[in-house]
Amino acid sequence: MAGVTFDFDADTSVEPAGDGRWVAAVRPGWSIAGAPNGGYLVSTILSAMGTAVPDHPDPLAVTAHFPGRADPGPAEVDTAVVRTGRRHATVTGTLSQDGAPRVTVACTYGDLSRTEGPSHIAESRPAFPAPEECVPAGGPEAPGFVQDFVSRFDLRLTPDTARWATARPSGVAEMCGWIRFADGREPDPRCLVLFADAFPPSTFNLMESSWVPTLELTVHVRRRPAPGWVQGRFRTRYLINGYLEEDGELWDANGDLVALSRQLARIR
Amino acid sequence: MAGVTFDFDADTSVEPAGDGRWVAAVRPGWSIAGAPNGGYLVSTILSAMGTAVPDHPDPLAVTAHFPGRADPGPAEVDTAVVRTGRRHATVTGTLSQDGAPRVTVACTYGDLSRTEGPSHIAESRPAFPAPEECVPAGGPEAPGFVQDFVSRFDLRLTPDTARWATARPSGVAEMCGWIRFADGREPDPRCLVLFADAFPPSTFNLMESSWVPTLELTVHVRRRPAPGWVQGRFRTRYLINGYLEEDGELWDANGDLVALSRQLARIR
Repeated sequence: MAGVTFDFDADTSVEPAGDGRWVAAVRPGWSIAGAPNGGYLVSTILSAMGTAVPDHPDPLAVTAHFPGRADPGPAEVDTAVVRTGRRHATVTGTLSQDGAPRVTVACTYGDLSRTEGPSHIAESRPAFPAPEECVPAGGPEAPGFVQDFVSRFDLRLTPDTARWATARPSGVAEMCGWIRFADGREPDPRCLVLFADAFPPSTFNLMESSWVPTLELTVHVRRRPAPGWVQGRFRTRYLINGYLEEDGELWDANGDLVALSRQLARIR
Repeated sequence: MAGVTFDFDADTSVEPAGDGRWVAAVRPGWSIAGAPNGGYLVSTILSAMGTAVPDHPDPLAVTAHFPGRADPGPAEVDTAVVRTGRRHATVTGTLSQDGAPRVTVACTYGDLSRTEGPSHIAESRPAFPAPEECVPAGGPEAPGFVQDFVSRFDLRLTPDTARWATARPSGVAEMCGWIRFADGREPDPRCLVLFADAFPPSTFNLMESSWVPTLELTVHVRRRPAPGWVQGRFRTRYLINGYLEEDGELWDANGDLVALSRQLARIR
């Protein structure tokens, strides 16, 4: 497949402009109701940040704050290497538009192919109905303003957690299902940050709401994912005065945990 | 109690040096085996960062990466306001020693006294034995190198999760108990970041290990804590090739959830 460029890679690509500065763009097609997806924006910033530390290929801990709303259009990314060590490297990056910061990221990089030490898994992967038995997100009944974003993925929700769309909110703030890119791009550590922010908000199963903007998103990538489907579960335990956490777990096609995520968001 | 200065406030104090730069110090007494506690270092950086955004008094989402090990001694903190908005403000800060960055923090600030919106709590506070029935951390049998740090707190572990110290590791990676400052300082949002990193690692109940250094720490402060004890629960579900997450929940004396934390750490 030499020469094939997948949407995710093309649309998160950046051009070096020297001194840690990058010419970027917020491409259309990754927005919901005009607001670019946060995981997509972070993935673009990571495109720039990662090139600074080639010996530490994997984003192990990604933290992102969202001081301003981005818009489709030109952008710049400023990156800085905080420190490169033997085992880990720390890099920061900020995406700005019209000179105003929109997303600021810090990442501890490492090499997941060289980790060593004890393992102990206390929780097993939940059993979901197979993708064929799940509900495709963004079916013809979904509102037009989500179609652009949803069409980038093959995203299927378990029938229990699709009830907000197929019937009425289940009353349990949980969203579960399967995700992969629609164009066949296989998952890697960087795209797990996007996958961790691509499911409908788990609070859609609690109450009708419009946008649930992210204030902060943290993703820990724990393993390089195998090719194929990624299985995701997102849950909210504490909605307090409009603020909520959404905790995510992602497993790969081998059944191994590949990432944990948490975001702080606010219901509008 | 006018005129009283508590240890935490004195030992995290900083002096302005202009242009977002601060003279700071890593004070002795907050280290374990010579390594300053990560939550303490972040609290010092927040002392500087918070003064930049007085209209947004509460750290809502604090993310910290630890590129280098700090040592007791002089330090400087550099802060920058990324953006101040109506409801939230984003600030970054880095603590350096000898010109080398040791801890880099980003924080989304807000005002927890003015939040409004729906609430829905899906999980109730766990019932712990009363503090009097718990096991004080840092008793006379504890090793000398933890005494300095532990003596800053009144920290008591539930008998079930103190078994690594009183008998042998329980086999469940969980650490639960009660915490407050030894000198009577009442909890506030900033010190919750320290409390979220002050319990023994939950993995001490899985296996004997030495230091478990933190790579990244995220704390979401969800409510201003009431005076009195803070109740904490810390759990690790996924230890993979030496890397682990530790998820924490903190409740105040009213029984309300006040913070969620997660850190990525590595067993040495």
